[in-house]
Amino acid sequence: MSTRIVEVRRNILKKNDLAAAGLRQRFRDSGMFVASVVSSPGAGKTAFLERTLAMAAAAHPVAALVGDLATECDAERLRRSGAPVRQITTGTVCHLDAEMVEQALEKWPPGGCEWLFVENVGNLVCPASYDLGEDLRVVLVSVTEGEDKPLKYPTIFNTADLAIVTKIDLAGAVDFDRAALLRNIDTVRPGLEVLEVSARSGAGFDEWMTWLAQRANALC
Amino acid sequence: MSTRIVEVRRNILKKNDLAAAGLRQRFRDSGMFVASVVSSPGAGKTAFLERTLAMAAAAHPVAALVGDLATECDAERLRRSGAPVRQITTGTVCHLDAEMVEQALEKWPPGGCEWLFVENVGNLVCPASYDLGEDLRVVLVSVTEGEDKPLKYPTIFNTADLAIVTKIDLAGAVDFDRAALLRNIDTVRPGLEVLEVSARSGAGFDEWMTWLAQRANALC
Repeated sequence: MSTRIVEVRRNILKKNDLAAAGLRQRFRDSGMFVASVVSSPGAGKTAFLERTLAMAAAAHPVAALVGDLATECDAERLRRSGAPVRQITTGTVCHLDAEMVEQALEKWPPGGCEWLFVENVGNLVCPASYDLGEDLRVVLVSVTEGEDKPLKYPTIFNTADLAIVTKIDLAGAVDFDRAALLRNIDTVRPGLEVLEVSARSGAGFDEWMTWLAQRANALC
Repeated sequence: MSTRIVEVRRNILKKNDLAAAGLRQRFRDSGMFVASVVSSPGAGKTAFLERTLAMAAAAHPVAALVGDLATECDAERLRRSGAPVRQITTGTVCHLDAEMVEQALEKWPPGGCEWLFVENVGNLVCPASYDLGEDLRVVLVSVTEGEDKPLKYPTIFNTADLAIVTKIDLAGAVDFDRAALLRNIDTVRPGLEVLEVSARSGAGFDEWMTWLAQRANALC
């Protein structure tokens, strides 16, 4: 990249970090626990959040923000959980940034929300660089994507606090090599915790809810 | 986006278009037919190209360029076909651009190459905006990704000359809804041709080779 582009990019990220710091303070002040979810397109973020919202709502007032280039499809799916959901339509932008989150949170969510989930645009590259003020970031990787993904997209795994293997019900159909995926995650991000889930069957969601509640309790 | 960012982006794309026009002229002059492949991470670009290179090499001298943020994994896989393959490692850049392709083609591929395949970085957003001088662009979408992808990533379908549904052997395991995917493709890009393949079983590859040969013959 040219010097000018690198400089413009650096300024964008600096501005984003400032906005994210403001958001983080605001979340702390209002006692809101925020988790973001990143993955490739089609790794199952929305199905994962559908079940997550339904389960989490039993114990906490929850809400979700969801990013996509186009459509309100994901917000419509998530609203069926009963939780308030707002879509951020990014147009041609391949990631959410802190300013988009800030704007979406104007007069929203309705008071009393304790847990907020943010579903990023499906992309394993650029979302890694944008702090959204979240308390933790979860990277999803489906068994159908290939076990090499951590090696090829190291930054997104490096900036995550948890990796979740999705669509585990399809492991047999795709000859999923669990040992290879775990080895590759550990290569790019030694010690990163990994859970396995199926949004179809519900497998692994109790462990995910326990993990999340422990993190939320430690913070709030 | 701020006015400054929009302007910088416009200049980058203008510069890219110039470089791409140069590449296209060079490909025409040397009689090289060039197809690029775009998709999400894990949609099966490399498996698709492994079989494609092996089949195409029976009739033409072929070569491939492959883009990734990190690793030489895909180039190593593709080299097993016997074709010359060069990896472009993009670092933090989420797409290939014409200049990267230009640089990779210095003193390469070895003389006589007639068909060149370019595998882009796994990303359904930014690769759509960068012309690489290719004669045609193929977008892959796997049955495991969800039938809504065309609606959520319209630009990549709008800039493609063919859509290929991959991993069709898994259609049953994931309750693939063919009618919905075809309807969604047709909504964002009316009339776009669609083929279906399985790199595992080889299903659909004869049709793909026929399609490709027709396009190449029409050009060269």
